[in-house]
Amino acid sequence: MHIYTADYIVTQNNTRDIIENGAVAIEKDKITCVGHADMMRDMYPDAELTELGRAVIMPGLVNAHTHVPMSLYRGFSDDKALMDWLTQDIFPAEAKLTAEMVETGALFSLAEMVRTGTTSFFDMYMHSDAVFRAADSIGLRGIVGENLTRFFPNLAFADMAAYRELMAAQAERCRNHPRLRQAITPHAPYTTTPELLQEAHAIAQEHGAIFAMHLAETESETETCLKEHGMRPVPYAESLGLLQPDSTFPHLVHVDEHDIELLAENRCAAVHNPASNMKLASGVAPVEKMIRGGVDVALGTDGPASNNAQNMFREMYVASLLHKVDQLSPTACPATLALDMATRGGSAAMHDPLIGVLEPGMRADFIALDLTTPNMQPVHHIVSNIVYAASGLENRLTVVDGRELYRDGKFLTCDYDALCQEIKERAAFFA
Amino acid sequence: MHIYTADYIVTQNNTRDIIENGAVAIEKDKITCVGHADMMRDMYPDAELTELGRAVIMPGLVNAHTHVPMSLYRGFSDDKALMDWLTQDIFPAEAKLTAEMVETGALFSLAEMVRTGTTSFFDMYMHSDAVFRAADSIGLRGIVGENLTRFFPNLAFADMAAYRELMAAQAERCRNHPRLRQAITPHAPYTTTPELLQEAHAIAQEHGAIFAMHLAETESETETCLKEHGMRPVPYAESLGLLQPDSTFPHLVHVDEHDIELLAENRCAAVHNPASNMKLASGVAPVEKMIRGGVDVALGTDGPASNNAQNMFREMYVASLLHKVDQLSPTACPATLALDMATRGGSAAMHDPLIGVLEPGMRADFIALDLTTPNMQPVHHIVSNIVYAASGLENRLTVVDGRELYRDGKFLTCDYDALCQEIKERAAFFA
Repeated sequence: MHIYTADYIVTQNNTRDIIENGAVAIEKDKITCVGHADMMRDMYPDAELTELGRAVIMPGLVNAHTHVPMSLYRGFSDDKALMDWLTQDIFPAEAKLTAEMVETGALFSLAEMVRTGTTSFFDMYMHSDAVFRAADSIGLRGIVGENLTRFFPNLAFADMAAYRELMAAQAERCRNHPRLRQAITPHAPYTTTPELLQEAHAIAQEHGAIFAMHLAETESETETCLKEHGMRPVPYAESLGLLQPDSTFPHLVHVDEHDIELLAENRCAAVHNPASNMKLASGVAPVEKMIRGGVDVALGTDGPASNNAQNMFREMYVASLLHKVDQLSPTACPATLALDMATRGGSAAMHDPLIGVLEPGMRADFIALDLTTPNMQPVHHIVSNIVYAASGLENRLTVVDGRELYRDGKFLTCDYDALCQEIKERAAFFA
Repeated sequence: MHIYTADYIVTQNNTRDIIENGAVAIEKDKITCVGHADMMRDMYPDAELTELGRAVIMPGLVNAHTHVPMSLYRGFSDDKALMDWLTQDIFPAEAKLTAEMVETGALFSLAEMVRTGTTSFFDMYMHSDAVFRAADSIGLRGIVGENLTRFFPNLAFADMAAYRELMAAQAERCRNHPRLRQAITPHAPYTTTPELLQEAHAIAQEHGAIFAMHLAETESETETCLKEHGMRPVPYAESLGLLQPDSTFPHLVHVDEHDIELLAENRCAAVHNPASNMKLASGVAPVEKMIRGGVDVALGTDGPASNNAQNMFREMYVASLLHKVDQLSPTACPATLALDMATRGGSAAMHDPLIGVLEPGMRADFIALDLTTPNMQPVHHIVSNIVYAASGLENRLTVVDGRELYRDGKFLTCDYDALCQEIKERAAFFA
């Protein structure tokens, strides 16, 4: 048994208990006890003890939508109109990608997550075998999908037969993996066909994989979908049988009341990407309407090319600010809701009921923020400081399945210095 | 002479030069040379040398509108409607403030600025003598104003005679101060009278002080001003002779074309406070319209009760995101503009032409960001990483007037541990 103590424990349990002078006890990969530090020390005098002092222990954050290999393109192209950005810069650069580049980019983003307190991620990109390898080696919890479009050959496979083979191999690899799951991730309605989407969904069901797809991200996507299919994107997805309880849909910016009803009825999870939606000027997702309508909403950063960080603390802050100014109400998206999205909502989007909350029986996925930096003091309400004042770099401990991945400046599961050199060299290829 | 070298120098000069493997040389409180590191080492072999390596040296950021003592209230009250926030929480708490509390709160915010790379600030609050003391002791550059309203007694003075006396003493104190200047800062149109504003402005002119006032922050301020004075806030200020080249107006959210013309004609500086305007749901200031109209625009955090950090890196990022989504254009407020506002715009709002740019003759106010954290790599465009990826805690060096205030985890001009204890005790008073 290992006991971690700190000035505060933010449990995110059903009653959102916050424990001062608290402790979390873990045994192997599970949490066994959450309570007062004094009591826990008395109860388990032989346990290994890590006393974090002026810190807050909280659930590891969930980045429920991203494209981790794109750290290669951080700052590569900004402040451009969406189509210029894609066609002049991103697509040509992506056409040059090799699996080796993808693995370096993925590992680098995952290191950023480990550094800034994210313990679970949901990725959609190309050369996903390389993303699996990166996630496996660094020790994060993840769902990994391979991008699928109607434009064959796709980067990592020539045709649907090759895609099926790749997906079958990934299913096999994930079968007994403690942390990694497979997703089937066609790109978006406008880059696929109805037949392709139905086939992809059948493959997901065959392998017991999560199904995910960018949905209702931009106004023009809605227009195209109406023109080509006579339906808005969400009803279109529903008509193809894609709205299922094992589905997760990122973005959902342009959704109306009926779309929200469909998502709720079918118990789909949504992922809100506020920074990306702002930076790419996609618009404002009606997050609180979705939540009131019964949809579980998680938070995601989207890729480093459109954010440009993989930092869920910043994402929580941006979410809260965005909805306040959009609704012209300072009570919109309070700190507690932003934190709920990044933890409990993340659990829904990852389809894993054992993450996002610190209580006995849950997975030992947690982090600890330093409370000695100026921005984290004084503490009137710890959740307010977490959402409105933390930068993410306060994180000093990242634990997944009971294993420490980062502690006090040291990356424990990757050679960080070598990785910095590698990302520099790989990124130079695109300069 | 002291030479600082780093992988990148972001000069923010007229041609926005960026120097790789660069160096900044300083002599006492001024910059004497900016150029390539190899050349500088050869030219000045006897200079003291600080080699920062994987870092970027850039101008210290300017926080052009804040209320530093309010760190006491960080996280004290959030997610409330504006009037509830003010009348239920903030005003009652402020009524209990003593000068000693204000000094602790101020010093704590200034420590946060020192930590996160801000070298100049413009403050408006109560018990400003205590803010002067805090700024003097920690070594930042600042403009400090005493809040003035028509509700006498004000917290720090009983009546206008006492206010005049206080302002005269502050003018005397600032006369030959190398870093601190006085501001005359009536609170806002709706908490003053025309006579009070004119008297305040005359006092500013008498002492050669900067004049500043919250202006056009909310929709209701405009409605009140129209009802009471038959004019919008900016024309109202103009009618009283307050729009002068030595003036700085924070917020300016609700300004129209004519307001912008008045501000530009009178060469007033504006301060944009995007995070505060979002968190308090005030609206979106037409920043790019102001800039195109000829107004110099700076950036400010506003106080820690409505932000909740004093971190100009976050403010640049938020500014850029806000205008992109507001204008539904990804080309709005590019990274270069956000950085310009936080540096060159800050120079205008501080009425100090010797800050905001690294070139010979300028004040030696600069900072250095660590480029070894994951979010700061790879470097395709350094300004993009600074605005879109930095958190602020990457800062490892803060220099004002050639004096190091912070370096690699150490606060060099305050007893930071004692200060943390003090803010905790002072803040507990409000719990």
